Amino acid sequence: MKGYVQIYTGNGKGKTTAALGLSLRAVCAGKKVFFGQFVKGMKYSELKAPQFLNQLEIKQYGRNCFIRKDPEEEDIRLAREGLKDLQMKIKSGDYDIVVMDELNIALFYKLFEVKDVLKLLREKHEKTEVIITGRYAPTELIEVADLVTEMKEIKHYYQQGVQAREGIEK
Amino acid sequence: MKGYVQIYTGNGKGKTTAALGLSLRAVCAGKKVFFGQFVKGMKYSELKAPQFLNQLEIKQYGRNCFIRKDPEEEDIRLAREGLKDLQMKIKSGDYDIVVMDELNIALFYKLFEVKDVLKLLREKHEKTEVIITGRYAPTELIEVADLVTEMKEIKHYYQQGVQAREGIEK
Repeated sequence: MKGYVQIYTGNGKGKTTAALGLSLRAVCAGKKVFFGQFVKGMKYSELKAPQFLNQLEIKQYGRNCFIRKDPEEEDIRLAREGLKDLQMKIKSGDYDIVVMDELNIALFYKLFEVKDVLKLLREKHEKTEVIITGRYAPTELIEVADLVTEMKEIKHYYQQGVQAREGIEK
Repeated sequence: MKGYVQIYTGNGKGKTTAALGLSLRAVCAGKKVFFGQFVKGMKYSELKAPQFLNQLEIKQYGRNCFIRKDPEEEDIRLAREGLKDLQMKIKSGDYDIVVMDELNIALFYKLFEVKDVLKLLREKHEKTEVIITGRYAPTELIEVADLVTEMKEIKHYYQQGVQAREGIEK
């Protein structure tokens, strides 16, 4: 089965969540999934998912806090290490699906360059499906992707003052 | 923790998938999830998810084929039974999250009425989070929901002739 490149972008809720759902469905069908998270180093509930799904691996390439304004050297170092790690995994053919969660955010903060990502995608193993998430997907990635969905915020309870809740948003 | 009403609608990929991801994250946080699927009776990969996640239950309220033009009596009967089942579950407080997958499609085909759904939501247990998916979310539901995301199709490989693939779309 040929693998494609999917992008989930936009300002609405559900991008990382859709990538998690896709991973769950794939594992149910006997597939092997690697889920890499850029920028994130916080202890999200989904980090426990491999305890239930042994065909799923998750790894984080970020610090334990969001990038506020300008990224620090440590943010750049971790993200570049992550990209290298994912590049190997996407090339290897060892995985049916590789998720690059918040890759667009890493690009937005210039932690690495879009040309590095385009190179990685050119070298991807034919069978491997690549899932990219995060706001602000750059045009260059949208051009090479096979499927692009924009999650658009119509209404959000953050506006009511609801904070991110464990097991729902994090 | 107070439960909210979330809607994932629009013509893009990722609605049911986001609901699955939300379910996975919730189970990782020790929560209990009921996932009801309207209109669907096909053997999707996600039906195997409870084998991995014992805090997740899935049930289908549809026939083993899509509704082509007009719904049949059996479609209506199954959907109404489903709505009754979900109403009990949403009221009971037994679940942290109840998903009503493709509810909007059931409404689109007039398998039951939007006023029945509004009643169900008014009677929902305070702690239970309700997730509604499907294209064509009616205005009445958008009004009462706390969070609404529109999945917008920007680019889709169906246009390249790619069929739904096991473990990815189904």
